[in-house]
Amino acid sequence: MDTPDQYRPLTPETLGARLASIDAVAKRVGSDPALWTVREVGDGNLNLVFIVEGPEGAVVVKQALPYVRLVGDSWPLPLYRAFFENHALVRQAERDPGSVPAVYHFDDTQALIVMEFLAPHKILRRKLIDGDKVAGLGNFLGKFCARTAFRGSELSMKSADKKKDVGLFSGNIEIPAITEALVFTDPYYDAEMNHHTDGLDAVVANLRSDARLKAKVQRHLMKFASNTETMVHGDLHSGSIMSTDTESRVIDPEFVQYGPMGFDIGMLLANFFMAYFSQPAHRAKDELDDYQEWLLSVVREVVEIFEEEFTRLWQTERTGMLYPEALFEGQGHNSADACAGLLAETWKEALGFCGIEMHRRTLSLAHNADFEEIEDKGLKAALEARNLHMGAELILNAETCGSLDELLLLARQVNKKDIL
Amino acid sequence: MDTPDQYRPLTPETLGARLASIDAVAKRVGSDPALWTVREVGDGNLNLVFIVEGPEGAVVVKQALPYVRLVGDSWPLPLYRAFFENHALVRQAERDPGSVPAVYHFDDTQALIVMEFLAPHKILRRKLIDGDKVAGLGNFLGKFCARTAFRGSELSMKSADKKKDVGLFSGNIEIPAITEALVFTDPYYDAEMNHHTDGLDAVVANLRSDARLKAKVQRHLMKFASNTETMVHGDLHSGSIMSTDTESRVIDPEFVQYGPMGFDIGMLLANFFMAYFSQPAHRAKDELDDYQEWLLSVVREVVEIFEEEFTRLWQTERTGMLYPEALFEGQGHNSADACAGLLAETWKEALGFCGIEMHRRTLSLAHNADFEEIEDKGLKAALEARNLHMGAELILNAETCGSLDELLLLARQVNKKDIL
Repeated sequence: MDTPDQYRPLTPETLGARLASIDAVAKRVGSDPALWTVREVGDGNLNLVFIVEGPEGAVVVKQALPYVRLVGDSWPLPLYRAFFENHALVRQAERDPGSVPAVYHFDDTQALIVMEFLAPHKILRRKLIDGDKVAGLGNFLGKFCARTAFRGSELSMKSADKKKDVGLFSGNIEIPAITEALVFTDPYYDAEMNHHTDGLDAVVANLRSDARLKAKVQRHLMKFASNTETMVHGDLHSGSIMSTDTESRVIDPEFVQYGPMGFDIGMLLANFFMAYFSQPAHRAKDELDDYQEWLLSVVREVVEIFEEEFTRLWQTERTGMLYPEALFEGQGHNSADACAGLLAETWKEALGFCGIEMHRRTLSLAHNADFEEIEDKGLKAALEARNLHMGAELILNAETCGSLDELLLLARQVNKKDIL
Repeated sequence: MDTPDQYRPLTPETLGARLASIDAVAKRVGSDPALWTVREVGDGNLNLVFIVEGPEGAVVVKQALPYVRLVGDSWPLPLYRAFFENHALVRQAERDPGSVPAVYHFDDTQALIVMEFLAPHKILRRKLIDGDKVAGLGNFLGKFCARTAFRGSELSMKSADKKKDVGLFSGNIEIPAITEALVFTDPYYDAEMNHHTDGLDAVVANLRSDARLKAKVQRHLMKFASNTETMVHGDLHSGSIMSTDTESRVIDPEFVQYGPMGFDIGMLLANFFMAYFSQPAHRAKDELDDYQEWLLSVVREVVEIFEEEFTRLWQTERTGMLYPEALFEGQGHNSADACAGLLAETWKEALGFCGIEMHRRTLSLAHNADFEEIEDKGLKAALEARNLHMGAELILNAETCGSLDELLLLARQVNKKDIL
């Protein structure tokens, strides 16, 4: 777990000399590093990210740092996360081809991955704040969630392979620990790194005084930490998606682990709801309704496509030990109800994770630009209060909330509500 | 996974020469193997078991065989299960001191464990067939299940330790695969190794035609295979318990894995219900009611003590990351409802596992002596039919079954029912 002696963080100045001898890089960028331009563009919380451009083309170089960049070297974080990210990218590319950047080279000691440069893609969160629409977004994300959930589970995988993989990823301890603390626990007490907008004190106190809500969140934490149903991306928010106007990719799976089937889609929906509730601060009135309704249409499409694609894979690729054909089709019984039952359970679980993500992004360490860029603090608090209210509704009533229509109706109602 | 070249199965003739040089053995049995008596007593399905007696005392030597003893060398089974059994015994001894035989020596290459000789203990299943009562049985088993469930979970363990352990046990693939097939899947289709008593065909056909029931069983399989909530014994039936009239121990944890909290207690209750339903074949009428009611009183005590002890540990030893005090007691909130909620979920899950175990012991490969020793095949089928009926009730209605009283009432009703 220690940082190897040979590990050296790259700089724009040293990158050329260090990477020019790697064929996978030279082939794509050009063999003379003197002709390369190197920009450090990492705006995330954990890593160095370089765009390397040359006469032949461009690549991205991502290198892990041995501490949390957002906090500094007082919070060490093992480099081995690059190893898990590489494994995750390889599996995601197999399970949903074209959904993630191609990996060209991986260096374990230097904790670095050389991968496809995506252009003219922008971080989706930026586009949602700017009011850009992305065609096919819900379709892409619904399929990504369904394919990785299904094909990473024992519905599809051989049990021996899946268990070996669970063993491999169980070595990733410190990264899930970040999620466990920041997402599931810190928001609900006065944790050291928390911060929230002035004006929310009463709302926050109210959440923290709700022992029933906290118990439900902790039950979800137990599921997150124990239920190795499938390989999850682990951090699937709108900052982990890059899009053009018509095409999208998922990036940054360093929070990968085996986890519950509803985790990724729950987190993802939360980020669309946060975009939705923050819109009144970013859009003029004449564009607001249209863009907010577009965001809800993406939520609808993600969920509908997820269920449709999962069901299609159930019918055509159920090769694992779970729900085997010998018990259903092999005896002349339809397994459609079994699939629908599993999806219904996954949906309820996802709504809980969704509500929790909405809370932590307003209360814990890592907030969203959707809200953070709002300059009018009174408006920011009012919109965040809606977000917190909806999150609590989902956590408390996930088991009874029911349909997608009811979920979208709830969002529209909360969007009109004065909480403060 | 291969059998090491140096591995040699012991025989009563070679055991003395091979083990006399081991201090842990010589100290307890005596240093001159010429004075030892060695008996092979393994009546289980998988291993060699020797009782070694000498002038100083006695030990048990258990050695894994590289195949399933019940089936023969056509079904290979890795020796590494002795490694996992040793790890399980060590953890169980820590988590519930005195509950399992002490380990004196472990030899990885020879897949053998030298352990405490329990006398005058007998296999509990034998005692239940013979109509012997064991004082304190429910108390002992309820505490064992509660302590191992709680102390093997992230309610108690540090997350890093628990995750490391999940990684360690994830190497155990073939042993869980036996449970996955024989317990959860084979009973519900015409699997090769299945057998059932003549006269049950219609009942069995009826079970196999119930797609809703099979879907519920498969959902439990998914939980068994994925939910690493705590370290489970994995095979906690009345053949894995040894008792005198007043004292009991749990043995044979080679099916150990990280699994759902409700698994062990569910399997265990199933074995008491099977003892209960088989009694009319083993007891004269004047003893029958009394002994059957005693069996139900053990079920009651197991469940009540499990919940009581789990709650006590919740209040006094909640040192893991789940449901941390900072969210409850630290804010002046009681966490009793959170504990009760988790126990209620565990209870429902346990009832499902209970029903499934009742099915597989009548339909799949490994049946129970409770029923197998019944010579009157008509009576055997009638009693097994009750067992199958109760199992189906539990699987289908676990979520609504509710209380312990209702469970015991159901058993009494089914015990009077003519199913065939």
